[in-house]
Amino acid sequence: MEYQILPKINGPDDVKKLSEAELERLAAEIRDRMIRTVSKNGGHLASNLGVVELTIALHRVFDSPNDKIVWDVGHQCYAHKLLTGRQEAFDSLRLPGGISGFTRRNESEHDIFSGGHSSVALSAAFGIAEANKKSGKKDYTIAVVGDGAFTGGMVYEALNNAGHAGKGTRLIVILNDNEMSISKNVGALARYFAALKANPQYFRLKATTENVLNHIPLVGKPMAQGIYNVKTRLKNAIYKSTMFEDMGFRYMGPIDGHDIPLLIDALEGAIEADYPILLHINTVKGKGYAIAEQKPDFFHGISAFNVVTGEKKSANRGFSDVFGEYVTEKAGIDERICCITAAMELGTGLTAFHQKFPDRFYDVGIAEQHAVTFASGLARGGMLPIFAVYSTFLQRAYDQIIHDCAMQGLKIVFAVDRAGFVGDDGESHHGLFDAAFLNSIPDITVYAPSTFAELKTAFDKALYQTEGPVAVRYPRGGEPDIPEAYLPSDENFDFFGEADADAAIVVYGRMFPEAIKAKEQLEKEGVRVSICKLNRIKPVPKAAVKSGMGAGVVCCFEEGQRCGGSGETFADKLSKYGFKGYFIDTGVKCEFCTQNTVEGLLKDYRLDAESMADLIREKLGGEQI
Amino acid sequence: MEYQILPKINGPDDVKKLSEAELERLAAEIRDRMIRTVSKNGGHLASNLGVVELTIALHRVFDSPNDKIVWDVGHQCYAHKLLTGRQEAFDSLRLPGGISGFTRRNESEHDIFSGGHSSVALSAAFGIAEANKKSGKKDYTIAVVGDGAFTGGMVYEALNNAGHAGKGTRLIVILNDNEMSISKNVGALARYFAALKANPQYFRLKATTENVLNHIPLVGKPMAQGIYNVKTRLKNAIYKSTMFEDMGFRYMGPIDGHDIPLLIDALEGAIEADYPILLHINTVKGKGYAIAEQKPDFFHGISAFNVVTGEKKSANRGFSDVFGEYVTEKAGIDERICCITAAMELGTGLTAFHQKFPDRFYDVGIAEQHAVTFASGLARGGMLPIFAVYSTFLQRAYDQIIHDCAMQGLKIVFAVDRAGFVGDDGESHHGLFDAAFLNSIPDITVYAPSTFAELKTAFDKALYQTEGPVAVRYPRGGEPDIPEAYLPSDENFDFFGEADADAAIVVYGRMFPEAIKAKEQLEKEGVRVSICKLNRIKPVPKAAVKSGMGAGVVCCFEEGQRCGGSGETFADKLSKYGFKGYFIDTGVKCEFCTQNTVEGLLKDYRLDAESMADLIREKLGGEQI
Repeated sequence: MEYQILPKINGPDDVKKLSEAELERLAAEIRDRMIRTVSKNGGHLASNLGVVELTIALHRVFDSPNDKIVWDVGHQCYAHKLLTGRQEAFDSLRLPGGISGFTRRNESEHDIFSGGHSSVALSAAFGIAEANKKSGKKDYTIAVVGDGAFTGGMVYEALNNAGHAGKGTRLIVILNDNEMSISKNVGALARYFAALKANPQYFRLKATTENVLNHIPLVGKPMAQGIYNVKTRLKNAIYKSTMFEDMGFRYMGPIDGHDIPLLIDALEGAIEADYPILLHINTVKGKGYAIAEQKPDFFHGISAFNVVTGEKKSANRGFSDVFGEYVTEKAGIDERICCITAAMELGTGLTAFHQKFPDRFYDVGIAEQHAVTFASGLARGGMLPIFAVYSTFLQRAYDQIIHDCAMQGLKIVFAVDRAGFVGDDGESHHGLFDAAFLNSIPDITVYAPSTFAELKTAFDKALYQTEGPVAVRYPRGGEPDIPEAYLPSDENFDFFGEADADAAIVVYGRMFPEAIKAKEQLEKEGVRVSICKLNRIKPVPKAAVKSGMGAGVVCCFEEGQRCGGSGETFADKLSKYGFKGYFIDTGVKCEFCTQNTVEGLLKDYRLDAESMADLIREKLGGEQI
Repeated sequence: MEYQILPKINGPDDVKKLSEAELERLAAEIRDRMIRTVSKNGGHLASNLGVVELTIALHRVFDSPNDKIVWDVGHQCYAHKLLTGRQEAFDSLRLPGGISGFTRRNESEHDIFSGGHSSVALSAAFGIAEANKKSGKKDYTIAVVGDGAFTGGMVYEALNNAGHAGKGTRLIVILNDNEMSISKNVGALARYFAALKANPQYFRLKATTENVLNHIPLVGKPMAQGIYNVKTRLKNAIYKSTMFEDMGFRYMGPIDGHDIPLLIDALEGAIEADYPILLHINTVKGKGYAIAEQKPDFFHGISAFNVVTGEKKSANRGFSDVFGEYVTEKAGIDERICCITAAMELGTGLTAFHQKFPDRFYDVGIAEQHAVTFASGLARGGMLPIFAVYSTFLQRAYDQIIHDCAMQGLKIVFAVDRAGFVGDDGESHHGLFDAAFLNSIPDITVYAPSTFAELKTAFDKALYQTEGPVAVRYPRGGEPDIPEAYLPSDENFDFFGEADADAAIVVYGRMFPEAIKAKEQLEKEGVRVSICKLNRIKPVPKAAVKSGMGAGVVCCFEEGQRCGGSGETFADKLSKYGFKGYFIDTGVKCEFCTQNTVEGLLKDYRLDAESMADLIREKLGGEQI
């Protein structure tokens, strides 16, 4: 496709200059650009294709960045990036050093709030709107929130708070209803939204009447207000009142989210209200790319793919797949096993389980807090629940793991996927906190397998040999190559090398193959290195700590936040056991890591084999070498 | 009051034997017993007085513990405890070694789920109901949830999930509407619940019709079902449909929650439905004790008080009060300062601030997640938000602190109250996790003052000298006595003693006076002790770590979870700086601490002065002493 309009758009002002026909053409060009870029770089496709018209309409009606658009999650911000001065940079989408696949405050003044996690936009937007109100600014704040995100409780906390704010609060919430979260949206709300769609005539009636009246000067607004009140009462009598109105918002919609003139009309109508508004729009995930429309969950987040066939270019078997196979097999034997996902069926490898055991599969929506406490209830009732969840999203259930699981002494198995660096999704998605936050929770056991075989062993132990809550954490992606001499056991740690080695390397999970390479390199140089591989990182096995104490230098390498992580616990125990050598702990040093390949990140944080060897050489000084 | 009925109640079966008049008498006796006990032991009074009739009705209709009653928070379980075999133990309520003021699984088979934190009961109850369904059990699960708890998002996550479960799910949610959370309930929902109450005629109509029809055998239930459907349609046309029905529940109510026969009727009606039910009841917080009815927030959680006057027996000025005075003063100077509470205005000391600056005071409901992200929005809009919150409740916003605050580089000041042991509220309420979980978060600064003067200094630094998010953590209660020679500076740490002391004690916050006592005792015995007092615990000041390195023994004492806490970070840094002495870290060792006095808990966890001295004596061995 030859781009006629897009290259002329250097910022939102240029969108405001286009004719209606040009806006349509712009939408097509944006879609083409997105598909071509994502097919190379990977990314979120279906969600981005769904909001092209909405994004154009928003930048047509509002004055970004004075008016502030807060994209929930941010996995639908590509059109926004293309319209706000990032066309050239767009080729670098999700690449090392390139622009992010999410909104990032440090990338553009138009990225109001950095995205990644779900259901937060309304809270942030209401905060901004309140701050505007306090300082007398008349700018609008717009939160764009998917229907999937409405399954997250924070949205209701924010509705309750913001719905109370009333007149003068220039806050517009756009419910982008594509009948999806990442998987097909389930639950009572999805049904409710569908019911709302069954009665769409209301909005058109109201919008038309109000628009006409608004063009009569002076008398217009009060009359429109009066009409609104009458209509609302009428509607409440004939149709249902919406739950959004119950929560203090004015509800408009649902309208076609791919009709640019209608969207512009609706947004202008929302401005007139001077009141918290919820505008319900219908969009199609994957819109304009037939293959993605058919398989929107597959095209939610995708690696590089063939544009014509829609096939992914790489499809290695990963830890998630092995987990999915494992749990499906075990559930055939043990009827107590049930699996819970927070809208991540595909990503966590649970599709086969869902198909085979629909009665024991629970997709609770994007609701990690509920997921944990619900799992606690299931456990209390005698089930053996497994909550499969990405490390970064489990952060949201920290209190529930403490209060509703560990404190109750209940057994939930946490399948903590995407632990460690995730690569191109960047700072909001790396799984760098779980080792630290789980470390602080009493009575929980945490296993950290490095191989597929170990993953299964860890789940065997988790399900049948461990009391209380237990987590198995494993990285995104496939299995590393482990030389036969280093195959891990099913013990809680493995020790490779001599007790009195010059240096001991302490690692777990994905650091293990790096440690092997470092050991082998250093041994070629005459340095004797041992490896203490933790298979269980909470509690850290005492014998593992003691095993390394014969070495003069002990180096711990951790693919996670160093503060509060297993390395610090190891250091603490070493001190207690009277270790007098030199200990150093390498991990992510209290910062947020941007996007990069996993290999690049390991290098950046000095966690790759070469950096390991360098550190040991340095610490051993000139003597041994 | 002479007890005639209560002493005969050894369990729920005995409630089922009573006449209607005896049930009324029982309610009065329970109230008397509660008031008398709480006036001595302290506790939650207003909430417990409000649910006496409900509790009686529940134990009359249901068969606990086969039918499972899950009390949200658990601060309304006293009547439940009195009716389930704990009358004798009730005198020990909240005392060391006594029964808990919340439900505790290890206390009785009737305590289904241990309580403490809000808004979780429905999630847990739905899990239990699902497990029952899977195993073919016909038992009911009942969640009792206050209207305040409905401001917490988890309730919606659970409604969305459970409302979808439909027929055969034996789940009853009782919305105990007393127009309160802990403070007066605010927000859009409170208004909505009030609107529902304005149309109460619906339930009576339906209940009566259905009850009559249910007594016709065989034909009864299907006909009742039909009536239900007709009525629902009629209601939707004439009145509003409720948001609970929108979310897949059947709604009954609102009814008078102090009318035992009506409650019994309603609960029996709910059983007939065989469908997830939400029963809305109206209760009066503090019911039956006039002083508490008038000041329900004051009588929410209270220490010992005079039954006749309602006056508290002790009222020392605490850290919360000093914080409240400080922030009210500063807000007069700095218009950007605003305060947020999650339904804890009184407890966090914000009453005066609210009165003086109503426009800059936000009670967001029991919604810590929203509170943090909303504060991020306020900060993004140019305000200087302070979120005052109990340590234990801040756990719920761990992800929001990471993702919506620290990752955005936004400045929120967290006033972390009740950090450390809280005493009689027990395991669900101790603030033992914040040092650890905040430790894992990049770019956050944490101050831990020991005195009122230091508290103010810490907030000065937090507000005006620290970039990014910052927390000030302080304990429940009053200021300790600090001898003049030990008055802390406004530096990030203080060092008292000689660099080459025999032993160094590392402490922060409330441990400081204990350290002083230990030092002075040991010096009398000829042991030279230094104290490294951390005023900032994140990041741990490098100079503080180095200051203690001249001592042969370094002992860290931390009033918090040891795993992941500041002590481990200290150990890690000591190792890195080449400390060759002996380090030992004392804290709460990976367990949940039950209720006790703060003094008792300090002893239990070997954090009091005497235990400190003992440990140092032991570690120094016979030589020095």
